[in-house]
Formats: sequence, structure tokens, C-alpha cells
Amino acid sequence: MDYGKEALKKHKQWRGKLDVQAKMPIQNHDDLSIAYTPGVAAPCLEIQKDPESVYTYTGKGNTVAVISDGSAVLGLGNIGPEAGIPVMEGKCVLFKALADIDAIPLCLNTQDVDELVQIISALQPSFGGINLEDIAAPRCFDVEAKLKEKMNIPVFHDDQHGTAIVVSSALINALRLLKKEDPTIVINGAGSAGIAIASLLLELQLGDVILVDREGILNVEMDLTSGQRRLIDRVNRYKKTGTLADALTEADVFIGVSAGHIVTKEMIRSMKKDPIVFAMANPIPEIERADALEAGAKIVGTGRSDYPNQINNVLAFPGIFKGALQARAKEINEAMKIAAVYAIADLIKPEELHEEYVIVSALDRRVVPAVSKAVFKAAQESGVAPQEGR
Amino acid sequence: MDYGKEALKKHKQWRGKLDVQAKMPIQNHDDLSIAYTPGVAAPCLEIQKDPESVYTYTGKGNTVAVISDGSAVLGLGNIGPEAGIPVMEGKCVLFKALADIDAIPLCLNTQDVDELVQIISALQPSFGGINLEDIAAPRCFDVEAKLKEKMNIPVFHDDQHGTAIVVSSALINALRLLKKEDPTIVINGAGSAGIAIASLLLELQLGDVILVDREGILNVEMDLTSGQRRLIDRVNRYKKTGTLADALTEADVFIGVSAGHIVTKEMIRSMKKDPIVFAMANPIPEIERADALEAGAKIVGTGRSDYPNQINNVLAFPGIFKGALQARAKEINEAMKIAAVYAIADLIKPEELHEEYVIVSALDRRVVPAVSKAVFKAAQESGVAPQEGR
Repeated sequence: MDYGKEALKKHKQWRGKLDVQAKMPIQNHDDLSIAYTPGVAAPCLEIQKDPESVYTYTGKGNTVAVISDGSAVLGLGNIGPEAGIPVMEGKCVLFKALADIDAIPLCLNTQDVDELVQIISALQPSFGGINLEDIAAPRCFDVEAKLKEKMNIPVFHDDQHGTAIVVSSALINALRLLKKEDPTIVINGAGSAGIAIASLLLELQLGDVILVDREGILNVEMDLTSGQRRLIDRVNRYKKTGTLADALTEADVFIGVSAGHIVTKEMIRSMKKDPIVFAMANPIPEIERADALEAGAKIVGTGRSDYPNQINNVLAFPGIFKGALQARAKEINEAMKIAAVYAIADLIKPEELHEEYVIVSALDRRVVPAVSKAVFKAAQESGVAPQEGR
Repeated sequence: MDYGKEALKKHKQWRGKLDVQAKMPIQNHDDLSIAYTPGVAAPCLEIQKDPESVYTYTGKGNTVAVISDGSAVLGLGNIGPEAGIPVMEGKCVLFKALADIDAIPLCLNTQDVDELVQIISALQPSFGGINLEDIAAPRCFDVEAKLKEKMNIPVFHDDQHGTAIVVSSALINALRLLKKEDPTIVINGAGSAGIAIASLLLELQLGDVILVDREGILNVEMDLTSGQRRLIDRVNRYKKTGTLADALTEADVFIGVSAGHIVTKEMIRSMKKDPIVFAMANPIPEIERADALEAGAKIVGTGRSDYPNQINNVLAFPGIFKGALQARAKEINEAMKIAAVYAIADLIKPEELHEEYVIVSALDRRVVPAVSKAVFKAAQESGVAPQEGR
């Protein structure tokens, strides 16, 4: 199927993918007087008296804003907030379909860090959580960090953390299957996703991480972004230098969040025996699956739904927000992310693991319950949620 | 029925009155690839190429933000943004139930004019219109005026204009029925609603308007708000001075947007023969209907649904936004408001008019189609909408 052509046709029919329904009929004056004035004054006054009761009398506790400035939409770049709306609506569709969360797409027409922070933090009363989406690096780091400081509801930049979580789940299973220990992991693309992946892999203590960007292997003498600088002392244990090809020589794992067709078969052949290759550039991976396998890759994952081992954010964000909202967590912290990583990985039993099945399907119905349960528990145990939950 | 008690119970069950549904199922990878990546890139690129196509490929054209800062919620005062959510959700319920418009409640945690303007104008990409709600005077005038300047979608402060439109419709019918011409109209309460009513009545050239506030009849020597100052030269043709009682002596019409029980039978008796009394303070009117009738009032309207002639904003905003959105109007101008006034008034045929029926029921199914059609036409004719409409 030509998805682009079909999507254009369908989007024209839909004229918006979301439908904001009322939960009750408004057919007579009693209906009106209960859902609206004068009856509605009663819950208003309750919330004024007891601010926490906003979670009882309104939709706040199950509502997430999906917010973008349109500066890095999919792989399309800075196409602007209007052009980003179809993606944000799509994300909201997934929130509903997979986790029964009410999500609202908000595309903002500013790309200034301080303005974004001011606007998004002012939206706090109506929402139980904020999903940041498709905001360009390095701005996305500052926006997220400042919002986390200012807000007392979860703020989660999915392009960073969602990707990092799902990559980690797949990698844990791949390492389990191939019984690799302390691997050398090369990440190509040191933007928002690459940095978040590196950061989480270090947190998980999965092995040595080498970060590579267009200039080659990152080192302290380069002009690094704030996100890169924060990690530079913790990566590249043996101070390797040079190009992507140099980095891959004798490496165990390749993780690509970069661009199509920039990894050669030669490079795969230079890796250690049974390499793991996650080529996630979309729609054209860093190396075609068939080429990677031919060059000796043992496990190949991509971002594409038409190949095995699809590494897809959809596995993470619905369950993570569900768990965080149910726990009424103030943030999504490292413990919650790590809980999500293992919840996703552990859905595949050791005896079920094989080269073409290191990560479950994006639409596997077990994912959201498993992830939300683990995240809920981690939120309570790490002290960012009240003990009684929602 | 005790609406407050019932509302509290129902709001607890609902936990939010809105449900953000997806218009399509997400059951397999094809569904995912059309509503989300990779297919969704196609409509994104179309919008980047042709910005107007955002109305074709997204929900923008049928989506309205209902925005408040919680500073003047119903008659409850400055109860804050969280406590205002039940009202904003209720408003969104009515948008959907009456006009099939997708409306999103946004309560902002700032009450600073410039911040409100910055935040609301940044939300423009996602919305086809902005309904401002329950923002205190005089801040609401500045916020609305500045937003109208900055934004190219309709911005409408319902507490001002919605009220003014419905009062005008009811008054036109009352004057028709009683064959009163060039009446003297006393408006008590010169805040946002009172000023907007005065302004529209002058626009409609219905008669002489006298504005009264706590200090008495407004005059140029008082410390007036910007909204009051804008009108002061156009009201009070005969330079009356004094109290509300003085204003009402020999007046034809009383319009109250003030507080309960501040008009006496004596005052009604001092008015011209067959006075018209719209006592809209809610839930306690400026004078009880029974008392007003006993003192000689010929036509009485209130804000209450349990009395005849309910003057309710619900008659205006759904159809006005519907018409404005369908026309893809850049604003809601005077011509569109006047069109709405007559569309509502004219739903009652001359032979149907009587003292207890000068305004149609808030839930009369003819209202939205009639209002939206009239507003659509006025938008095109006054040049704020493209000729072809949506």
C-alpha cells in the first residue's frame, strides 16, 4: 500500500482525526443545569476549597497535551506548527486507542525556548501530563529541563525518552539472546534521540557507548551541545577516535538514529561476531535489512512496520503516561523509565526470543497494561507519587 | 431538583465531561501507518506547501479553544483556573451537543494581560476560533482587543458579546410586542456584560441607554474604565444623574447584570407604562419575577431556566462560532453579531409573540442552523471571509 497516498485521501475525509465528545446528552433544562449552570458551580467551589479534588471533578487526571513547535516534525525538519498538526493529532489518536487517555494536540507558533516554557507551564491547570513532540535539538533539552523545574505534572519529550526506552528494551533482549556481555555500543546520530538513548543505556549499565555524529566520534575538543557535554565523560571508555567506520570496528552493537544508507556492508563486516544492528532512520534505514544480514548481522531492527523487530515509540508513551497518570506522579523519572524498559522487554519469554523477535509488536495488547503497571509501581516506590495513587 | 447536589454527584462519576475520541480504529499496522507514521508525512508536506490546506487535512476548522484565567467564574469571582475547569468543560459540552464543534477547555495559570495575549496567540495554529470565558473586567477588554489585533481567527469573549446578543434579541421582540419606540433603557451593572450590551444596543439604535453602576448613573466625572469611557458620550441623551432609582423613573426598560434583589417594586412602579424588566443576576435576579409583575412589569426575563423568557448565552455562541468557522471568517465583527441578534429574534413569528415568549428556549433546535446561516452570510458580505466559504 502507498501509505502517503492513502493518508492524503483519508485525512481529507476525516478533516481532523479527533472528535471531542460530550459524555452526557444535553436534551432538556435539567441536563443543562447539571452539566453547566447553575449546577456546575458546586464542583467549582469544591475544587476551590480542595485543589486536589480537581482530579475528582474534572478530566485533568486523564488528559495529556501533545505539544510541538513544528521545528523537527518526523524526519521532515522545521515545517512549522500548522504542518505538524497531522502528526500531533495522530499521536492523540494513539493515546486514545491504546491507553484510553484523552489527548489534545497543541501546535504553538513560537520556537523561542523561554516563550515555549512560559506558554506550556501556563497550561498546567487543564492537564495531567505534557507530551513534548518533534521539537528540534538542542532547544528540546532546555525546554524540557526548564518545564520539569516549573511544573508539577509529568513532562516527557517522547522523541528522546520514548525512543530510548524502546531501543533499550530491544537491546536487552538481543543481548540476552546472543549472550553478549559488556558490549561496545555505537550510536550514530548525537541529536535528541541519540543523546537520550546513550543516557539511558549508561543508566542501565548495558556496556560501553560510543557516540558518533557527522564529524565522527564525539570528543571533548569538539563544539558539543549541552546534552552531548553532559555525557562525554561517561562514554567511549577506550577513547576511540575517527569516523563511523572506525567506531564500528570491533563493536558489538550499531544503533542508528541518523540518515538512510550511511552504513556499508564493509562496516558491518568489521564488527565483532554476530553484530546487533538497529537501523532506525525512517523510512530509509542506515543500512537495508537484507544488506545487514548478508554482511553478517545476527539481529536487525528498524523503525519500519514491514520488517521484523520494529522499534517503535508506540510501545512506550501510552503505557508510561497511563501509569504516571494513574499514580498521579509529579514527574516521569529514571526509575519509571527503567521500569518501562524491562516491562516491554520481559513480555517476550526467554524461550520465545529469536533473531526476528527481540521486541513485541507495536499493537500487542499486553504492552500498555504491563508498562502502566510497572510505571505506576516505580512512581510510588521512587516517591514521586502519593502512596494511595489515583 | 437540587442542581448543585446532583452536579456534584454526576461530576464525580464523569471525572471530566469530555471524551477525546479517535475517528478511526487502530487495529493493525496499516491503520497505524495511515493515521500516523509513515503515511502522515504526506498531509504534513501538503500543509507546508499550501498553508490553507490545514483546513482540509486537520481538525483546525472545526476546533475552538474555550479559554479562561479563572478570574471571574460564573458569579463566583476569582476562584482560579483549576476551579474554573468544570465550567469550561461544560461550555465545550454545549459546543458539541448544540453545534457539533470540537471544543477544548484550557484554563491558564496567569492573570497578566500580556502573558494571556502571548499564550493565547501562540495557540493559533491548532484552533479555528477562540472563545474567551470568565475573565474579569477590565482585563477582558484589553485581552480581547490585543488578541483581535494579533490573531487571524475569531476571538470572542462570550460573557460580553454572547450576553449582549441574546439580550438584544429578547429586547427587540419585547419592543415589537409592546410597540414601544425609542425607549429609555437602563442597564444596571457596567462591567464587561453591561458595557457590551450597551454597545450593541447603541449599534442597533434601539433607544437611549443609561448606564448605572454601584456609584449611580455613570458620568464623565467618575473614574471610568476604558470600556465605560468609550461609550460615555453616546449614552444618557438627557444627562440624567443620580441613583438607580432616579435612572428608572420614567424609563421603559430595565436590564440587570448586577446582583440579586437590588430593584424594588417601588422602582418598577416609577417606570413608564408596561415596563420591560430583564433581571439577569443569577441565581437570584435583581427583582423576583413575581414582584416585578405585581408592580406592573409587562414583560419579565431572567437568566433562570425555570421561568419564562430565559435570557441565556447558549442561544448565541454555538451558532455564531458555527457560522464563523464555516465561513472561515478571520473575526466575529459587528455585522455578524447583529445578524445573530435578528436570527434569534426572528425565530418567533409576530403572531406567536406574547409576554411570556419574547425569546426562544435555549435548547430550541432551530437556533443553531438559523444563527449560523445568518452569521455565515454576514461574514461573507462584510468581507471578513473568503467568498467561497469553507
